[in-house]
Amino acid sequence: MKIIRSLAELRETLSVRDKVRSLVPTMGYLHEGHASLIRDARRESEQVCVNIFVNPLQFNNARDFETYPVSEDHDRAICEEAGADIVFVPTASEMLGAGPALQMAMPALTKNLCGPFRPGHFEGVLLIVAKLFHLFLPHKAYFGKKDYQQFRVIQRMVEDLSFPIDIIGCETIREADGLAMSSRNKNLKPEHREQAALMIRGFRIAEKAFNNGNANPADLAEIAQDVMLTGPDNRVEYTQVVDPETLEVLQEIEGDFVIAAAMHCGEVRLIDNLLIRGG
Amino acid sequence: MKIIRSLAELRETLSVRDKVRSLVPTMGYLHEGHASLIRDARRESEQVCVNIFVNPLQFNNARDFETYPVSEDHDRAICEEAGADIVFVPTASEMLGAGPALQMAMPALTKNLCGPFRPGHFEGVLLIVAKLFHLFLPHKAYFGKKDYQQFRVIQRMVEDLSFPIDIIGCETIREADGLAMSSRNKNLKPEHREQAALMIRGFRIAEKAFNNGNANPADLAEIAQDVMLTGPDNRVEYTQVVDPETLEVLQEIEGDFVIAAAMHCGEVRLIDNLLIRGG
Repeated sequence: MKIIRSLAELRETLSVRDKVRSLVPTMGYLHEGHASLIRDARRESEQVCVNIFVNPLQFNNARDFETYPVSEDHDRAICEEAGADIVFVPTASEMLGAGPALQMAMPALTKNLCGPFRPGHFEGVLLIVAKLFHLFLPHKAYFGKKDYQQFRVIQRMVEDLSFPIDIIGCETIREADGLAMSSRNKNLKPEHREQAALMIRGFRIAEKAFNNGNANPADLAEIAQDVMLTGPDNRVEYTQVVDPETLEVLQEIEGDFVIAAAMHCGEVRLIDNLLIRGG
Repeated sequence: MKIIRSLAELRETLSVRDKVRSLVPTMGYLHEGHASLIRDARRESEQVCVNIFVNPLQFNNARDFETYPVSEDHDRAICEEAGADIVFVPTASEMLGAGPALQMAMPALTKNLCGPFRPGHFEGVLLIVAKLFHLFLPHKAYFGKKDYQQFRVIQRMVEDLSFPIDIIGCETIREADGLAMSSRNKNLKPEHREQAALMIRGFRIAEKAFNNGNANPADLAEIAQDVMLTGPDNRVEYTQVVDPETLEVLQEIEGDFVIAAAMHCGEVRLIDNLLIRGG
């Protein structure tokens, strides 16, 4: 496994695109969810690249950026074990220079869910992911569906700009009690850990209500949210029932749908979602 | 020479990037300026692709879009003669489907010159050029410097997003009297044709004034503009002296600079510019 830190070396290493190449873009502090993406990439391609970069452009909150956990040795071990060939770990100045003049945005897919609560976030994601795609020129790129809105925004960017890349969305990997794996879980205080799992529990109770005949999206969101709020240290930012493609908030349910939320558990902001089959 | 009309056939034809490939993106109605780009590409690469697409996204004015000249047979002959291998001529629906959700913009480089007069224009250019770059995956792409602001905007996009593409800016090709070649010249009324050449004449008189010791940017712009306005059917949109890199309007001249203008000659809007050596 090769560790690369400069754009020049990355370009040189990847100049020939003769193997089926995959990219797993990450912000580091890797967990079993990332390992699962890397293993999927390993199985489905010949050259597996992992990018580790805490992208300052996508943090709307300076404190969130400063407290974002970092651990390169730990990350390196996970990449090695999961089968990565190349790990790119650029500095911010290597990656962004004096900063881009270009702006990218996707208002149609970012007006709901996290969009309004994280101004500038998806704009930063779009820029950095487009840049990574050009640096790596992968045939496939792997994203976890825990960040469902990010997954859709990137999928749509690839479609709109005809990137020659397959975007693979991978199922969320969860702890035994259902909590979605996230680098931010590390910042949870021990006394909040159980309350964090109330988000997925809320989604599953809403799913049961739907399967029992309640097809009102607002009701389902409220059920999930009420479950989350049984944790005294939970504060819900939003709970929405949206169309899996357009991310429009649904007024009525006519097929598959996604229930998604953002919740502050103590000091830590967590997101999760569940795709529910409507058919 | 192969003519391609569908994205699927284009992808199939270009799937292997084993030759040095160049792209000349155009909006058709080709003239000697385009032919010169294609010949440069022919000399400097192994596989020469020309794109012909009148991009509706970059027209801020519906009438301008409707009257933009089209002539496929003529274009085909020019491509053939100049040495193109592949000519892609998509329809708008093939190229844009139901329309992009992604938005791209570059306020820092579009606040001057044509930017304020053509709202949405450079945003449309950025989107379509990024898409073309992904469809063709060229090693080099050729742009005329007559559209100097477009050239810089694209160059900066490539830098910001690390596209693996060299952007080659080619000198403007001119008629005998100096008028920059443009597809729009075709729409000039015969009685306006001579007045159109007053733009480049104005730049050259300003250049002479600069070489004779006048280094005031506002003076130089005014000299050029006064020359243009000696044509009774000329209406000047702007004349600006800008930095060749940042496109900032200069308050004083400290090196090379660009003098650029947009002028309506009768009904036809024309642009041109001249790089003047400040050393």
